[in-house]
Amino acid sequence: MRLLEDGKAWTLLTSLDELKGFEESIGSRRPHGEAYSRDFRGPNWLDKRKAAAGFTERDPVVLIVGGGHAGLSIAARLRQLGVEALIVDRHPRVGDNWRRRYHALTLHNQVHVNHLPYLPFPANWPTYIPKDKLAGWFEAYCEIMELDYWTGTEFSGGSYDERAARWTVELRQAGGTRTLHPRHVVLAAGVSTLPRKPEIPGLADFRGRVLHSHEYDEATSWRGRDAIVIGTGNSGHDIAQDLYSNGARVTLVQRSPTLILNIEPSAQLVYALYGEGIPTEDCDLITTANPLALQRQYHRIVAAQSRAMDRELTDRLARVGFRNDEEDRLGWQFKYLERGGGYYFNVGCSDLIAERKIRLEQFSGLAGFGAGGAQTRSGEVIPAELVVLATGYLGQEHLVRRLFGDAVADRVGPVWGFDEAEQELRNMWMPTRQPGLWFNAGSFAQCRIYSKVLALQIKAREAGLI
Amino acid sequence: MRLLEDGKAWTLLTSLDELKGFEESIGSRRPHGEAYSRDFRGPNWLDKRKAAAGFTERDPVVLIVGGGHAGLSIAARLRQLGVEALIVDRHPRVGDNWRRRYHALTLHNQVHVNHLPYLPFPANWPTYIPKDKLAGWFEAYCEIMELDYWTGTEFSGGSYDERAARWTVELRQAGGTRTLHPRHVVLAAGVSTLPRKPEIPGLADFRGRVLHSHEYDEATSWRGRDAIVIGTGNSGHDIAQDLYSNGARVTLVQRSPTLILNIEPSAQLVYALYGEGIPTEDCDLITTANPLALQRQYHRIVAAQSRAMDRELTDRLARVGFRNDEEDRLGWQFKYLERGGGYYFNVGCSDLIAERKIRLEQFSGLAGFGAGGAQTRSGEVIPAELVVLATGYLGQEHLVRRLFGDAVADRVGPVWGFDEAEQELRNMWMPTRQPGLWFNAGSFAQCRIYSKVLALQIKAREAGLI
Repeated sequence: MRLLEDGKAWTLLTSLDELKGFEESIGSRRPHGEAYSRDFRGPNWLDKRKAAAGFTERDPVVLIVGGGHAGLSIAARLRQLGVEALIVDRHPRVGDNWRRRYHALTLHNQVHVNHLPYLPFPANWPTYIPKDKLAGWFEAYCEIMELDYWTGTEFSGGSYDERAARWTVELRQAGGTRTLHPRHVVLAAGVSTLPRKPEIPGLADFRGRVLHSHEYDEATSWRGRDAIVIGTGNSGHDIAQDLYSNGARVTLVQRSPTLILNIEPSAQLVYALYGEGIPTEDCDLITTANPLALQRQYHRIVAAQSRAMDRELTDRLARVGFRNDEEDRLGWQFKYLERGGGYYFNVGCSDLIAERKIRLEQFSGLAGFGAGGAQTRSGEVIPAELVVLATGYLGQEHLVRRLFGDAVADRVGPVWGFDEAEQELRNMWMPTRQPGLWFNAGSFAQCRIYSKVLALQIKAREAGLI
Repeated sequence: MRLLEDGKAWTLLTSLDELKGFEESIGSRRPHGEAYSRDFRGPNWLDKRKAAAGFTERDPVVLIVGGGHAGLSIAARLRQLGVEALIVDRHPRVGDNWRRRYHALTLHNQVHVNHLPYLPFPANWPTYIPKDKLAGWFEAYCEIMELDYWTGTEFSGGSYDERAARWTVELRQAGGTRTLHPRHVVLAAGVSTLPRKPEIPGLADFRGRVLHSHEYDEATSWRGRDAIVIGTGNSGHDIAQDLYSNGARVTLVQRSPTLILNIEPSAQLVYALYGEGIPTEDCDLITTANPLALQRQYHRIVAAQSRAMDRELTDRLARVGFRNDEEDRLGWQFKYLERGGGYYFNVGCSDLIAERKIRLEQFSGLAGFGAGGAQTRSGEVIPAELVVLATGYLGQEHLVRRLFGDAVADRVGPVWGFDEAEQELRNMWMPTRQPGLWFNAGSFAQCRIYSKVLALQIKAREAGLI
């Protein structure tokens, strides 16, 4: 409860925080370890870890699909509650979901807001974490938290048996296929799952390389060559800057008005609470205690501040024809929560556009594509050997449809984005209409905070409390 | 300063804690990371890390010999002060110094006292950490703290150039030899360095296998066979128990009276301060603030409590002829500080001895060894296919002599054990008579606490403050 100065209650939060009798095994409840220290004969800790991770003679209670921060968060939470969980991920190595992204990438928000559960980033870590450093952390986290994680494993879908109250799922690995019967499946594959590839007139005739942004990984081979990047979200801008910085000639194509913020200070305003001072747990509580209407009010104020701070930059962009999102009232974070994109945190690309070092074209100004590049409505040919589609991703409901079929997808409905009646993100961290199917995704902070609530709901079911 | 109830000062501690203008780069002084996040062109964090670790075009300021907890601690401390350090270790993988030890090993004291600098063990870790879990932590620590660490590298000695104020050191690797010129060498190879192998009558004639305890690694191949373990310190007891538990017939040979403590609660009494409550930094300050005379007084009290607690066990041991160290007055920790051993934390072996499941012989009762085992003075042959010499290690001064020659060793003198005039451990974490030569060793707690003082002294010299 938060109080006003006159003593009246302003907001009230009720939240699942702990199950009595099933507390997390941390601090004074940590495992004692006598079993390892006194039993000279039996298997030691490592033997047990290896045996457990194989799941050869039993099924995990929970299968977690995706081993990025979302998968790691929920796995760590479940383990502390004594619920056996297995993460599966298609990449060959833990952390590859970051390692394989573009060379210059760092996290776009600050270290203080991005801690995973139980193991905060150390005090000597940089404010903006580089991708490979983060990838190494994921690998270490997995080992330190004793998470069971199968790399090189593709989850190819499954079906739910209502009577047995369990799934039958197929896992493809280089060595063959494994079938498991978990009681719960947590999709932790990200807010952005399947690439969105819109129909672009004439692109089928283009003779160069076409990559969706999720396939793009390096710029050096495009040095001295022409590239067109379609899309002005974060990916489009970052890829355009990466190509330009490595010596490519780049045209960025804008499809719709975009919200532009400098990464500092304006993109960081929403995290003002988080810093070196207040403990993360307290920040998380304060952040989550606000009902949706209040959150909107808060973000309306921050967005206005941000607009004012970035005015000089957006004016410069407007002068070269960039269409700023002047309609925006709630700021970038609500764009993320409502549609998963539509903004760019400027780390330099907006300056390159304003300085005309990166050429800007409106999508509406293009007649279409041909063998050698794009053609403007005025007849000019923009040559290209590479076209990058930074056109975003489809929502998680599309992944549900692909993995579990139409019946499950129709039952579950849209995932992410607010449900106005419930005031919560649809299907996230709550029971869905499909028993045994759960979602964990979003920012590092969301996954840290809400993975706890999700793990407690699964534990309550497994313990027979509900 | 600690005060008595009447307001008088009881103890006063002065200690090097920070160099003004050269504060550690942590918390609000953490690196900001703008360099990585905005420079799309240049090398990224990983490129820089790889380039730095090679030391191809420059020398490390500090060379650290040994990559266990002592080496990791001082390397992490130096890095936070911006002093370039390189750890070298002969093992093929970080953590192997624990990984390669016997199967059932766990740390013999509790997690709360064993934190490394800057990154405490998580709250979900077991009270007694298993060796492989600790080895994994070392590997993760190295990555997380960005320490430069060359595995598979044997430090084969060096010489100091007084005029240039730097060392010339030789490093042997599989690919050849590297010569470096660090300004400082920190020996972090442990309190126990070179194995002590006493002359044992007739052992040269023994036809079975003879291993020093540091070479012993696994018991399963001795199942159903006879083994003799010489020495009743921690190593001797643990190895005897390991062999017995895996089905060997074991005789333990006692050379001198030994202090026996149950691992819980009596061996833990000295750590009473450390637990889930008080922050580690505060515990460390309280612990280190006591002058030597007070420490002795404290340990005298604890040792008496401990003796009383363990009386039932030591009585049982006495009945089978075990010689308990009845002369001891200061307890195990002073034995460690003064001679690096002479005690055993019972995790079950004392019970096996008392129950005569492990046979006990006094060394004085043996006539000597022959081809097939040992012979008692009464003429009985104790058959053996394996003899393990758990006869301890030589002090660090022996390593100094081997690595740097007689002149340096004579100048430096004994290392470890108290200097009564200075009231400090000889040569540890302080300037030695050999410029540029330093020592970091001891328990996890000692290395955590005093590595800071050592790093500050090196930083002060590099910054030209002294």
